[in-house]
Amino acid sequence: MARRRDATMEDVANHAGVALSSVSRVLNDHPDVSDRMKQRVMGAIADVGYEPNLLASSLRRGSTKTIGFLASDISNPLFAEIALGAERRLDEAEYTMVLTNSEGSGERDEEMIRLLRWRRTDGLILSVSDERRAGTLVELARLDVPVVLIDRDVKGLDDASVVTSDHARGMRSAVDHLIELGHTDIALISGPRQLRPARERLRVFRRAFRDQQLEPPEHLLRIGSFSAQSGEQATLDLLASDRPPTAMIAGGNLLLTGVLRALRRRKLTVGRDIALVSCDEVPLTELHSPPITVIARDAVHMGDLAAELLLERLVGDAEPRRAVVPTSLIVRDSTKKARRR
Amino acid sequence: MARRRDATMEDVANHAGVALSSVSRVLNDHPDVSDRMKQRVMGAIADVGYEPNLLASSLRRGSTKTIGFLASDISNPLFAEIALGAERRLDEAEYTMVLTNSEGSGERDEEMIRLLRWRRTDGLILSVSDERRAGTLVELARLDVPVVLIDRDVKGLDDASVVTSDHARGMRSAVDHLIELGHTDIALISGPRQLRPARERLRVFRRAFRDQQLEPPEHLLRIGSFSAQSGEQATLDLLASDRPPTAMIAGGNLLLTGVLRALRRRKLTVGRDIALVSCDEVPLTELHSPPITVIARDAVHMGDLAAELLLERLVGDAEPRRAVVPTSLIVRDSTKKARRR
Repeated sequence: MARRRDATMEDVANHAGVALSSVSRVLNDHPDVSDRMKQRVMGAIADVGYEPNLLASSLRRGSTKTIGFLASDISNPLFAEIALGAERRLDEAEYTMVLTNSEGSGERDEEMIRLLRWRRTDGLILSVSDERRAGTLVELARLDVPVVLIDRDVKGLDDASVVTSDHARGMRSAVDHLIELGHTDIALISGPRQLRPARERLRVFRRAFRDQQLEPPEHLLRIGSFSAQSGEQATLDLLASDRPPTAMIAGGNLLLTGVLRALRRRKLTVGRDIALVSCDEVPLTELHSPPITVIARDAVHMGDLAAELLLERLVGDAEPRRAVVPTSLIVRDSTKKARRR
Repeated sequence: MARRRDATMEDVANHAGVALSSVSRVLNDHPDVSDRMKQRVMGAIADVGYEPNLLASSLRRGSTKTIGFLASDISNPLFAEIALGAERRLDEAEYTMVLTNSEGSGERDEEMIRLLRWRRTDGLILSVSDERRAGTLVELARLDVPVVLIDRDVKGLDDASVVTSDHARGMRSAVDHLIELGHTDIALISGPRQLRPARERLRVFRRAFRDQQLEPPEHLLRIGSFSAQSGEQATLDLLASDRPPTAMIAGGNLLLTGVLRALRRRKLTVGRDIALVSCDEVPLTELHSPPITVIARDAVHMGDLAAELLLERLVGDAEPRRAVVPTSLIVRDSTKKARRR
């Protein structure tokens, strides 16, 4: 093929009419390079057909200009948006992103973090599937690169930056809204306790009841995985119980899919037969009939912020810090006046 | 931190009671290593705290065990599913995936392919944003690693494997179905001509009419980008025309979101006021009221197959080949008997 391996950095320097050190600075993304110099060198690289070997220069420089991103479920549109935000920001700073996926498995969290360490990525953005797994904690302790956690609380990992969602505010608004409409038999279908979002939603759900001198409906809590299947099963189970809920909160967009499947199977109409709130805006929440009330947050911004917190440690040598992305309740027709059955 | 850089491969071999060459074979993913040997060596690596440097061994070996994946839009759930399928399969074969995103820009296609080449990835899975851009073709010609294209036809790139969707079959079934229901004023809203899926859908759309001795409704074709915004604008435009369509086909899940927004704005009910078919199954198509007829395909399988075609060239030294993923029409209540307005 057309690859000319023979051209050297010297050829590039000669062709561009610049010093060899300038070519080197451009290739190593040195901060003190003008855009004009960069253009000139890149043009010469194309003209002479020089092929830089970033692998070799990574080894010399001790930096790979790659960031590892571990998602707990990449097929979840929420993570796709977070990955988009992070990738876009990292690319601006001339880092590439290595995407790995633990598919909800704590064991894979551990394996993937180890692999990313061995690959000498310059930093990690992690949304692990299990915050409490001993093996994962051991792997995390071995890291000597900056880490940013996305909506996770990992005990003992004090030097990580963290981007969290303010789940409390959104969940509190949702429960208050439903109670105001006359609902007290409110079900919460959520993910596992070893993940911060699920823990936070559960904690605030209970507290919102207590703050109104009401007993939280413990019999209507369903804690499982974040999958559609889990949402469907939990809903069928709730609807078959002695005292079924008059309102439901689905703690994630995949859970929502399952909840809606179950309601359809039982021929219940959202907004008329049962009130429904979901977490995270997806096309389905907006375009469902009736549209579904959601606790919304900006997922692309979460990814962008995670990349920023990482870059400020890599480039700016800043201290780790926490950033919080707000959530807000968007009220729609799926939560109307309660009708007792 | 707890990282012990001092441990060497010799320490691992001594601790495991195996030869140094066995440790090396495990670390380099040599095919002739038993699971038992692998476990033993991995255990010793953990015990002595040895930290392999995959970067250095990549350079020695001339293989990075990484695959570049270029998506034209990672926030599109379709690509998230393709990425999931590919990542899962590559991980089984002990490759990691570098994810890049061109966000619909031909210029970024070119930049990303160049970057992935410079990073010495062992192979590429590409779903470029523009099949015809000269700069991209030049970059592709420079590659000397195996390439798999996902649903793209790139002229002159004869040594690439390709995974395509059989758009023809699904589109043909959709048009035949709508014509059978009495529709002839059928609109097609689709993506740009420089991408294979859009070209194929348009070609077969027209042909399906001609095969029934009907003139294709050229005035109802709207070719733009694959975005929700493009779908919304095209629909508003069609509805405002002298002879609005009685049925519509949305050529992608983001376009569908825009189409539904526009229909809602014009207070038209899907299935009653207008028939609607979409491409690619998402939760919205299944759970919309009424459920939406779709041309479906298995996107996770497309990613899996792309990884497989790449691996068979990397590991098995096979020739490039084409694989086709079927599409099928799932008929739902959004396409009922036509009602003339």
